[in-house]
Amino acid sequence: MPDFTVGERFRVTLFGQSHGPAVGCVMEGFPAGFAPDGEKAAAFIARRAPGRNAWSTPRKEDDRPEILSGLNENGQTCGAPITALIRNGNTHSADYAELKDTPRPGHADYTARVKYGAAWDGRGGGQFSARLTAPLCFAGALAKQYLEEKGISVAAHIARIGTVTDAKPDPVQPALPLYAPGAFPVIDPERGEAMKAEIEAARQQGDSIGGAVRCFAAGLPAGLGGPYFGGMEGKLAKALFGIPAVKGVEFGETQACGSANNDAFCVRDGAVRTATNRAGGILGGITNGMPVYFTVSFKPTPSISIPQRSVNLKTMEETPLAVHGRHDPCVVPRAVPVVEAVTAIILLDAWLGK
Amino acid sequence: MPDFTVGERFRVTLFGQSHGPAVGCVMEGFPAGFAPDGEKAAAFIARRAPGRNAWSTPRKEDDRPEILSGLNENGQTCGAPITALIRNGNTHSADYAELKDTPRPGHADYTARVKYGAAWDGRGGGQFSARLTAPLCFAGALAKQYLEEKGISVAAHIARIGTVTDAKPDPVQPALPLYAPGAFPVIDPERGEAMKAEIEAARQQGDSIGGAVRCFAAGLPAGLGGPYFGGMEGKLAKALFGIPAVKGVEFGETQACGSANNDAFCVRDGAVRTATNRAGGILGGITNGMPVYFTVSFKPTPSISIPQRSVNLKTMEETPLAVHGRHDPCVVPRAVPVVEAVTAIILLDAWLGK
Amino acid sequence: MPDFTVGERFRVTLFGQSHGPAVGCVMEGFPAGFAPDGEKAAAFIARRAPGRNAWSTPRKEDDRPEILSGLNENGQTCGAPITALIRNGNTHSADYAELKDTPRPGHADYTARVKYGAAWDGRGGGQFSARLTAPLCFAGALAKQYLEEKGISVAAHIARIGTVTDAKPDPVQPALPLYAPGAFPVIDPERGEAMKAEIEAARQQGDSIGGAVRCFAAGLPAGLGGPYFGGMEGKLAKALFGIPAVKGVEFGETQACGSANNDAFCVRDGAVRTATNRAGGILGGITNGMPVYFTVSFKPTPSISIPQRSVNLKTMEETPLAVHGRHDPCVVPRAVPVVEAVTAIILLDAWLGK
Amino acid sequence: MPDFTVGERFRVTLFGQSHGPAVGCVMEGFPAGFAPDGEKAAAFIARRAPGRNAWSTPRKEDDRPEILSGLNENGQTCGAPITALIRNGNTHSADYAELKDTPRPGHADYTARVKYGAAWDGRGGGQFSARLTAPLCFAGALAKQYLEEKGISVAAHIARIGTVTDAKPDPVQPALPLYAPGAFPVIDPERGEAMKAEIEAARQQGDSIGGAVRCFAAGLPAGLGGPYFGGMEGKLAKALFGIPAVKGVEFGETQACGSANNDAFCVRDGAVRTATNRAGGILGGITNGMPVYFTVSFKPTPSISIPQRSVNLKTMEETPLAVHGRHDPCVVPRAVPVVEAVTAIILLDAWLGK
Repeated sequence: MPDFTVGERFRVTLFGQSHGPAVGCVMEGFPAGFAPDGEKAAAFIARRAPGRNAWSTPRKEDDRPEILSGLNENGQTCGAPITALIRNGNTHSADYAELKDTPRPGHADYTARVKYGAAWDGRGGGQFSARLTAPLCFAGALAKQYLEEKGISVAAHIARIGTVTDAKPDPVQPALPLYAPGAFPVIDPERGEAMKAEIEAARQQGDSIGGAVRCFAAGLPAGLGGPYFGGMEGKLAKALFGIPAVKGVEFGETQACGSANNDAFCVRDGAVRTATNRAGGILGGITNGMPVYFTVSFKPTPSISIPQRSVNLKTMEETPLAVHGRHDPCVVPRAVPVVEAVTAIILLDAWLGK
Repeated sequence: MPDFTVGERFRVTLFGQSHGPAVGCVMEGFPAGFAPDGEKAAAFIARRAPGRNAWSTPRKEDDRPEILSGLNENGQTCGAPITALIRNGNTHSADYAELKDTPRPGHADYTARVKYGAAWDGRGGGQFSARLTAPLCFAGALAKQYLEEKGISVAAHIARIGTVTDAKPDPVQPALPLYAPGAFPVIDPERGEAMKAEIEAARQQGDSIGGAVRCFAAGLPAGLGGPYFGGMEGKLAKALFGIPAVKGVEFGETQACGSANNDAFCVRDGAVRTATNRAGGILGGITNGMPVYFTVSFKPTPSISIPQRSVNLKTMEETPLAVHGRHDPCVVPRAVPVVEAVTAIILLDAWLGK
Repeated sequence: MPDFTVGERFRVTLFGQSHGPAVGCVMEGFPAGFAPDGEKAAAFIARRAPGRNAWSTPRKEDDRPEILSGLNENGQTCGAPITALIRNGNTHSADYAELKDTPRPGHADYTARVKYGAAWDGRGGGQFSARLTAPLCFAGALAKQYLEEKGISVAAHIARIGTVTDAKPDPVQPALPLYAPGAFPVIDPERGEAMKAEIEAARQQGDSIGGAVRCFAAGLPAGLGGPYFGGMEGKLAKALFGIPAVKGVEFGETQACGSANNDAFCVRDGAVRTATNRAGGILGGITNGMPVYFTVSFKPTPSISIPQRSVNLKTMEETPLAVHGRHDPCVVPRAVPVVEAVTAIILLDAWLGK
Repeated sequence: MPDFTVGERFRVTLFGQSHGPAVGCVMEGFPAGFAPDGEKAAAFIARRAPGRNAWSTPRKEDDRPEILSGLNENGQTCGAPITALIRNGNTHSADYAELKDTPRPGHADYTARVKYGAAWDGRGGGQFSARLTAPLCFAGALAKQYLEEKGISVAAHIARIGTVTDAKPDPVQPALPLYAPGAFPVIDPERGEAMKAEIEAARQQGDSIGGAVRCFAAGLPAGLGGPYFGGMEGKLAKALFGIPAVKGVEFGETQACGSANNDAFCVRDGAVRTATNRAGGILGGITNGMPVYFTVSFKPTPSISIPQRSVNLKTMEETPLAVHGRHDPCVVPRAVPVVEAVTAIILLDAWLGK
């Protein structure tokens, strides 16, 4: 039921609004005795920050969190909830003033108003803002570090921008990470250039463009998850659909016929493995020891400067609407670390339950 | 965490194994004072039963449930948990004897053994069996009846079998139901014939074939769901991925560019509506009053009679495997009511929380 | 939120009404590979059954459950939800006909009607009936057997009936079990006779009498539970207050002053222990390796034949009320196994999370 | 499962350690559109703060929280999680240095170490510290204000310190609040003086003393709660046992015999009421429209300066222990607002579910 909490054994609760004093998160259930690498976590969060490159919004966010609880004197997790705080700043609330009564198409403006009434703080999208993915990435960074120590890697790449697709990793033995640190997050840099061109074209038209992120997790033990509503697909999907703009989640790579789709079992390095990995590492809701992978599709960001039609909620009259402000023409590149973060959170959660 | 429970306010807990004495479900939170129509519920469950037609397995299941609790003397829900019991019968456990040590590719046999150990009752797939969708459909039938009384309709159709796709309903004002009672569950009967031909071709080759189901829910009020992890997409997806063989869930119908994807707000019948419905009735995780719709993709059933490769878990030697028994070459037609059932359960759950 | 589910990792869901077809339970999360002893479980349930002795109601219940799921061919738990069904019978619904509009004082009749409306099935108390403690005891019997195999014993006794108290076990090293099988559940048989006399006196006057049950759990490892809302006291208390007629729960045996109340740490058998056990085996919400114990107080059963005053809900007029039927003058002796059952369920739940 | 979260629809998550940078809380589910009175909330929190009077520790805490999220520009709740932050300060970590390897009797020191290992931040009790009741009180203050607007009052008093008891309010129509603002929280000031004398006597001896708090909630509608594990007693008890040092919870005031204990139904002001209120306002787990009340017993604070016996966990040798530092000889007076806060949180939670 909670809107801002994800996970069961490892639970992450987000808080904040886009134009409020701060955003942040509280994590419960992170194992005690782990020393997170703050620099590494900051670098991970920086991957989702806007304003760092040509293909995203010129807004700059300094997302380095202050840790309010959860660490002992030596910087180790001590078993208390870990709380991270990121102050907001550099907000242009005025940009949103005229939107107060006229919901932006494709945004949560209208539905938020139905749910919360007139008191909703719609500036910057309020609690619907992707700004909350900053603390989500911090939580994911810690989960990722912990999993890495257990031999589990999580890595995503842009699968598609518009119609341009990236190369596909080998789903049986993907070479992780999929690209060099700091690079545009694709396997094939040439296709990455084509993607950037698509993004730039959308920007020039005041339009936006969607795409997809593919994520891999390798090194997972067999046996995580469960049948029916305890399946790993459902747990991951529920969390992934929590990321703003996600509209689809697909596991593995299904073939039309059973004979082509079934992954034959084989023995590799003394362990039961599958020869192919159409299943995406999950059978009957439970990890089978093969890499887990899935593709998350994102709608084009609804923030466009092309004039649109909306309704003035006070007068109930249809009205044209032009949205100003600084917006990404494409959220997909910045969504790559967010997908990794959410995946790491859910996998740590599952791992703690084994 | 529970594997067999779905929903929060309206909670459905499944139980049973494929070859155990019975399957069934317990429902908590169904509103008191409602008189379910037993005949209608039985007719709904019959839509998923095998053995009723040419395109599915010749197994026959009599799925009419016995109600053990939850109704008063007048057949109304009384506030107590509603328990439905369906006895098993007509099982051929011998069919599964040789599979004890050799997991079937694409099935949960291997991962179940990793999770539960040697005590797992693998006959017929145990608790992973799609047999548990019979009580799930009963729960869904009750939810559907309740929602109908509130003006909310849920209806699904086969979106695709192999490469054959059905016609698409108008997402703004879909004409529900989408097909005549008892008919093959497609909008366009001609395409339905082509789908049946695909299924028959798969059967003749001892193979199987996958597809997709599209589901619509019309009449929902705006305001159900919430931001981030409380979004309707995540809640529906988590439940839908609980259906055996589901590998993907996609909401609405995303367009490449924001200008084409954003649904303009308009006024219709005095209410705020959208002119198009790419969003699938959900904005910011919250229903916007438009029909909710999504597409669920199913892998081809892993049960095929074409010889496959597997591993004998006792000897750890690779071994050929031939699976006998009576299996559907395509689960998609029978999955249509299951998707409706799960959708109705989650929507009733959300509706009760408004 | 669910009313009929208790536990997190080991979850027990009760179902049924007093005068419906059946009562039962579904258990999720019980470890696979365990072979429950059916005879022992039946003997445990029999301890709560009425009609077995002089001091309780002459109603006879045959509570041996039918197992509908959760066991494999060899009678071992297989990882599927375990479902137990107990058919109802021997009900005298006519006894309750005149109570339809006139709630019995001290019972749930009035509040149930407020919550569920006119459709509530009030016969025998409906889903509020202590009849549902029969399947609860079955679930507890299984939990108890499992814990015993891990060296953890759970045993309760009558601490008090009216003003007659039983002897107190040594809280540091209680001798469990506290009485012989089949005996009146007290340590000191002489005081047991005095208790029976109190019960008999209440019966003769058409009145009822309350009391308390004390429960011990020995052999628990240190480290179960957690700070604040994760404390063992809270988890146990929430479940214990679920037992009908419970009005108080108290842990350990608190002394007035800190110097007398603090349990000094000492070393015993090479392990950290406490010299005394005022704390009841729990410090900071977490087990400390000493026996956990607590006292549960029960109100006198509200079912008395002495005339009382009530209100006719239809006419809203005050009216005298005489309750007929077969009722225990004291539920405390039969509550002893119920307290043990609930304790075992919660301790298994905690044990599975360590 | 979460240790630091309480509530379902209204959920409060605490964070922080005693000697970390801050404590605080995140609240989800508080209704949007409410304007909390900050001064009133601060005054409420001040009631639990130490150092304000003769009978508690000389430590001073400035507990006025910073609100990081959840309010809109007009200071109204906007539907986003409400986050409150209270910086720590005035901590004497050196006081705890020598306790690192020698657990204090009656404290969580030993069990925390078993649960979290050597990384536990034991300074000031870490996350077990009653310091976290400061943000808990803030959450409770908001819940209380909201309930007050709905006509629901929550008020507690000291029921007992040592052997000195306060007068008892009329459980049918208690006069709330029970004492003047700023006064020692008792009904009978004379008995309050006797309580203070008990506390002072304990202080002089370097000892501590326990007691009990009684809490009333008036104005609740009938129908909140549910049967079995959904009962209001269990929900309240689980939360109340989360308060440090609570060892017992008892509802209403049970009489020995049913004839004396049953509350006769009557008609008052046109509504169904009970003539007496032994039940504490709850029947069958559900509120009956009468005042809810219960008594919470607190052990004497384990922090005493009288020498005690403990064990050095490194050497596993028994050792005498003298605890220094500034401690309350009695936590009960400061616990009064904490009990009110927890009660208000759970009642708001239940109220939102009706």
